[in-house]
Amino acid sequence: MSTKIRYLTAGESHGQALVVILEGIPSGLKLTKEWIDKELRRRQIGYGRGERMKIEKDEVRIISGVRLGKTLGSPVSFLIPNLDWKNWEKIMGADEVENKDVPAFTRPRPGHADLVGGIKYNFLDLRNVLERASARETAARVAAGAVCKKLLHEFNIKTFSRTVQIGREKDATAREEAIESYERIEKSPVRCLNFFTERKMIELIDEVKRRGDTVGGIFEVIFLGLPPGLGSYIQWDLKLDARLAFSLMSIQAIVGVEIGAGFEASSSFGSEVQDEIAYNETRGFYRLSNRAGGIEGGMTTGEPLVLRVAMKPISTLAKPLRSVDIVSKKEVAATKERSDVCAVPAASVIGEAVCAIEIAKAMREKFGGDSLEEMRKNYLSYMEYVRAR
Amino acid sequence: MSTKIRYLTAGESHGQALVVILEGIPSGLKLTKEWIDKELRRRQIGYGRGERMKIEKDEVRIISGVRLGKTLGSPVSFLIPNLDWKNWEKIMGADEVENKDVPAFTRPRPGHADLVGGIKYNFLDLRNVLERASARETAARVAAGAVCKKLLHEFNIKTFSRTVQIGREKDATAREEAIESYERIEKSPVRCLNFFTERKMIELIDEVKRRGDTVGGIFEVIFLGLPPGLGSYIQWDLKLDARLAFSLMSIQAIVGVEIGAGFEASSSFGSEVQDEIAYNETRGFYRLSNRAGGIEGGMTTGEPLVLRVAMKPISTLAKPLRSVDIVSKKEVAATKERSDVCAVPAASVIGEAVCAIEIAKAMREKFGGDSLEEMRKNYLSYMEYVRAR
Amino acid sequence: MSTKIRYLTAGESHGQALVVILEGIPSGLKLTKEWIDKELRRRQIGYGRGERMKIEKDEVRIISGVRLGKTLGSPVSFLIPNLDWKNWEKIMGADEVENKDVPAFTRPRPGHADLVGGIKYNFLDLRNVLERASARETAARVAAGAVCKKLLHEFNIKTFSRTVQIGREKDATAREEAIESYERIEKSPVRCLNFFTERKMIELIDEVKRRGDTVGGIFEVIFLGLPPGLGSYIQWDLKLDARLAFSLMSIQAIVGVEIGAGFEASSSFGSEVQDEIAYNETRGFYRLSNRAGGIEGGMTTGEPLVLRVAMKPISTLAKPLRSVDIVSKKEVAATKERSDVCAVPAASVIGEAVCAIEIAKAMREKFGGDSLEEMRKNYLSYMEYVRAR
Amino acid sequence: MSTKIRYLTAGESHGQALVVILEGIPSGLKLTKEWIDKELRRRQIGYGRGERMKIEKDEVRIISGVRLGKTLGSPVSFLIPNLDWKNWEKIMGADEVENKDVPAFTRPRPGHADLVGGIKYNFLDLRNVLERASARETAARVAAGAVCKKLLHEFNIKTFSRTVQIGREKDATAREEAIESYERIEKSPVRCLNFFTERKMIELIDEVKRRGDTVGGIFEVIFLGLPPGLGSYIQWDLKLDARLAFSLMSIQAIVGVEIGAGFEASSSFGSEVQDEIAYNETRGFYRLSNRAGGIEGGMTTGEPLVLRVAMKPISTLAKPLRSVDIVSKKEVAATKERSDVCAVPAASVIGEAVCAIEIAKAMREKFGGDSLEEMRKNYLSYMEYVRAR
Repeated sequence: MSTKIRYLTAGESHGQALVVILEGIPSGLKLTKEWIDKELRRRQIGYGRGERMKIEKDEVRIISGVRLGKTLGSPVSFLIPNLDWKNWEKIMGADEVENKDVPAFTRPRPGHADLVGGIKYNFLDLRNVLERASARETAARVAAGAVCKKLLHEFNIKTFSRTVQIGREKDATAREEAIESYERIEKSPVRCLNFFTERKMIELIDEVKRRGDTVGGIFEVIFLGLPPGLGSYIQWDLKLDARLAFSLMSIQAIVGVEIGAGFEASSSFGSEVQDEIAYNETRGFYRLSNRAGGIEGGMTTGEPLVLRVAMKPISTLAKPLRSVDIVSKKEVAATKERSDVCAVPAASVIGEAVCAIEIAKAMREKFGGDSLEEMRKNYLSYMEYVRAR
Repeated sequence: MSTKIRYLTAGESHGQALVVILEGIPSGLKLTKEWIDKELRRRQIGYGRGERMKIEKDEVRIISGVRLGKTLGSPVSFLIPNLDWKNWEKIMGADEVENKDVPAFTRPRPGHADLVGGIKYNFLDLRNVLERASARETAARVAAGAVCKKLLHEFNIKTFSRTVQIGREKDATAREEAIESYERIEKSPVRCLNFFTERKMIELIDEVKRRGDTVGGIFEVIFLGLPPGLGSYIQWDLKLDARLAFSLMSIQAIVGVEIGAGFEASSSFGSEVQDEIAYNETRGFYRLSNRAGGIEGGMTTGEPLVLRVAMKPISTLAKPLRSVDIVSKKEVAATKERSDVCAVPAASVIGEAVCAIEIAKAMREKFGGDSLEEMRKNYLSYMEYVRAR
Repeated sequence: MSTKIRYLTAGESHGQALVVILEGIPSGLKLTKEWIDKELRRRQIGYGRGERMKIEKDEVRIISGVRLGKTLGSPVSFLIPNLDWKNWEKIMGADEVENKDVPAFTRPRPGHADLVGGIKYNFLDLRNVLERASARETAARVAAGAVCKKLLHEFNIKTFSRTVQIGREKDATAREEAIESYERIEKSPVRCLNFFTERKMIELIDEVKRRGDTVGGIFEVIFLGLPPGLGSYIQWDLKLDARLAFSLMSIQAIVGVEIGAGFEASSSFGSEVQDEIAYNETRGFYRLSNRAGGIEGGMTTGEPLVLRVAMKPISTLAKPLRSVDIVSKKEVAATKERSDVCAVPAASVIGEAVCAIEIAKAMREKFGGDSLEEMRKNYLSYMEYVRAR
Repeated sequence: MSTKIRYLTAGESHGQALVVILEGIPSGLKLTKEWIDKELRRRQIGYGRGERMKIEKDEVRIISGVRLGKTLGSPVSFLIPNLDWKNWEKIMGADEVENKDVPAFTRPRPGHADLVGGIKYNFLDLRNVLERASARETAARVAAGAVCKKLLHEFNIKTFSRTVQIGREKDATAREEAIESYERIEKSPVRCLNFFTERKMIELIDEVKRRGDTVGGIFEVIFLGLPPGLGSYIQWDLKLDARLAFSLMSIQAIVGVEIGAGFEASSSFGSEVQDEIAYNETRGFYRLSNRAGGIEGGMTTGEPLVLRVAMKPISTLAKPLRSVDIVSKKEVAATKERSDVCAVPAASVIGEAVCAIEIAKAMREKFGGDSLEEMRKNYLSYMEYVRAR
């Protein structure tokens, strides 16, 4: 897969810190800690989050790649320290402990990586698995995504996300309205536009919490302002829709992704789902509809990019599930960890981030360049050409 | 993304041939042209396919990597010749033509790569785009997938696929039944298990064809016999579910992917969707259900892997859509090309293939080795360990 | 490693054909079979080559990615057929042979992949190894390199190579002279500029041939016209010098690579080896010398790129070496295969090719774009900026 | 390129810290901070290093991937803090500074990335370049290499390195002796075995220092205990010798790499340079010599792996070189930074590290597995097979 941007994350949930190295951001991009922290906050807000979100206010510590307010072109790296590290040092520290009084986690939780991870990596203490498999890792990806969003902003590409369903409560408000009233979504504790649905979602979360249960949902990610021609049809792994599905499916608890009309399109006729092509001098080529969700042939069309993503309910229940102790092989209740009741609003912010990374990759591939200025010149030159087609 | 297996395809729809290079298959795997051709035939069969499928019977020509019936460990490559090449040589040949009487394709078809591809690559003849963007390229992936399926068979991993929906006609037959009666599916012209639904699907296709329209649907891909622990949670791009979604979404006209309960899970409660863990001496650890579709934490659990994939209706309609001539900028009817009415059954075979490739990759990562014998020893050693956990 | 260009080769030495898929060449590049064949010829010419070179005149068969004389942006693929395939079909065919009368190759040749390859891939017939490990594979890389050279030519980047040493016979002619009199080198049967040295090299080859021995040497690869700033210092695997060494060392029988003053620089003082910086309005920044060989900090400086590459003598000797039969474990003479006496002139052409590929990669990374026009606009915009610094 | 191991480094020379993420180390490997710190110390020792080495004693801070003394299989990450950060915070901090009193570095140093880097990334302050291009980054690679060396030790693979030349002072002691008396090398301030040569090297360094000059040299890296069959001939970028050259050439100031007899082999005859094959029951197959340096066909033979690497003299001279101010365009003396006189002994330690990483990659590819136990079982099974060939 062709790309200038690559990144790796590291870090355990209760370890010292999450670590991110993000390579391929052009030099000369203005970037502040505050910009990234704002995205980290957006990830932590949301009705239905557990206690931990209230304790921790994630902040990034920029280690490299940014100097005096601007990116250097060299790898950007940061830490997101664990604010509760003091309490975990003995359990999660790197040093061997003489007196092995660290209790092992041996009761795998259904729906988590615990059991299989323990087998794969040959652990009897499943904490060794869950600490990395935890969705806390997504904070690292949100931070990386924040940098990419900043880059996209320089090209007037805008990112939106919203909750469209929690449990069976659906918000059917039109996409256009959601974009227009986006401030409303940003303020909603469940990232839902419709007041009435928002209320019902909150009630559902309250009820589910009382029952010791969890609930899933669906969120939508939208990008506006994309140039036509990001991604490519020439090789399977260059298709942008496939790359977006890759990155969205890699988010913990995500179990479905669709683009544009998606699953609904599968029960439609061809005459209903295609976006007819029109042209006028002001807009150039455009579409009379956007059922494709902004992608044709694995490339952006220039229309809004629209993805819908299904999240299963969080696997950690207050009311534990049946499991088996991996040492004694006896039936036990799965270990209970502090957890969220509903993480769909947070997931929508994570979804924005991972898509922003993929789109930034595609922008870097198409426009090349090493400094923001160079990349911008190349971009403007292409956009001028597009208008003249 | 970690992998020993990598592959590239090349070739235009009406070019001389499709080309595949597939690297990373261990040495010593028995492989015949017939095995691959059988999969190519499965891709071409199906009610609702256009004329071309009847003309062409794809056959592979193995060029390298296989000697005297066995793989060499070196890159496997093959051609899938275009049987109609004589009629296309003047239009698609590599040589510059003096008398430029090759007519340009200037009427982009909505839903295809035509318009955006022409802009991206700076073409006025959109044939330059559609020839590569065409779904014919999937024949190459089916051939690569056939080799990977052969490898998986050596480890008793079995692949299934079936149509579960065409238009609004759904087959709700249980998965277990589908696997048991798989011969029936292989014989069905729409790859549908239920006789009654099959009939309705065929009627729908007939009707749609009469109307000059097309129709989409949903197919399911299932793998049995996977060892636990393929894929990994340790980095986002190693998660097997994400990699499967990546490869499935890269198939032409695919607009949605879900794993296990998928979108349905998003409207369920946590207590409903988790697969509780049990143990007995014969089976070792197992699950009381398989709502997760065989993946937890981005890794196979050992339970059946189940993916559902949404295909939009083929974009090429007999009844053409509104478009704009890219040269004259006048409104025109989009160019009509010979096409299928419904390609869902074919897509299900393609889906099998691309998933088989991803699973073969994950198998090669986990078990290493260079010869089939070495890979098998490593596999058996792991399976013994798993049983002893 | 960041790149838009990637390629794979496949094919056995006496198989049907070599296969190449080369992805990432922009659309709109004029390309002919003749251009590629010319490079294939250059690889086959040279004093000291074996019989095979005289039998076979390699020609490429373009399968995809080129239409009516221009690249499509989609993967370029070609075959280089084995002209002697008829005589090898029974021995190298893909089909299982009933009557197993194909003799096994069991006497590994020192200096070749035979012995270790047989162990690694678990073969008792070492032909399975040598057919892929053979230097014949470099024809595929020369073909891929020819396409990249064509791309570089569009940006006025020129490629040169020459033999500077065969055995102990050295040509100390200055680089500048070699470039000026390059036609002379192209006509020399040993690719040597100096007439006197050429004669001595030829005599040496004749003598070595008489003795049933082989001889190695050193060649030089030079690129002129590179823009400053290809490659990067920001991550180890983006450094252009490292990538060039990677690709050169991957050529069969290459055992050493140096850039600029290379090993000689290691015995010099800092005050002797640095290239001082000057500036004038016409040339912009330039250097007062070029001991660095055109690379600083892993990036092109704009000065000539100069690499020197050491080739060991071909391992296949007419006078066979001591070996051990892998089945009987008895001491035997290593199997003798038809072979070259000296392949240094050919290797210099291969060296050009693999470097051209790496430089084309770096050009595509820096200038992005999908069509040659777009890439060129971006290039020109950068070069204008460079001049204005 | 196939690999389970991948890594990225980040960090500026005078930034807060260097950062490393290293992925693909199996779980269950014992690893301590002390082990890594020891390697960092080895990199900092050496006659001829500048003042900075005396100030700073690099220590690693493990952030993730190691718990209670063992690796988790998840990405290992660490920081190497800049102990002098307090003095650099204002100059190198990420925050925008109101009062722009940070002086710009505008006098590019010949032999460094300064000039080209400034052009490429569009900087007027060349500190933005030199901070990342600096050889300080190699501390990060030494730390990553230390982890890989620990992994290799588990398989009885041992790493050695030594200085064989500084300026024109050569140590011709045999390799075998160097390995036997390795403690002596570890104690030598110039990593030279021969007492007499060591003295001359030290005198040379003293003299060069007095003159305000610098001096280069050649070091050797040796690995013992490698299994046969690491790397592969099947595709150019899988060849282990090429990958080793790639990683060695990526070290700052390295200008040449050779394997085994290297450049010397190029002036030899075939009958002189091949390593004849022998067999006895105890040792299995072995070689009567090791001119190939332990690699044939891009694969380890099982014989000692031997690489020789040329380092040019450090580019930063006390006696500055001619340059041009990039703003005023006037001729100036290049900026002088604190620097080493001779860094060859340090480079040899860095060379060990980067080779250890490549070999660990090749080991992970061949033996797969996720835990050290699983990898070891696969390794032992292969070694048993090798012995039985």
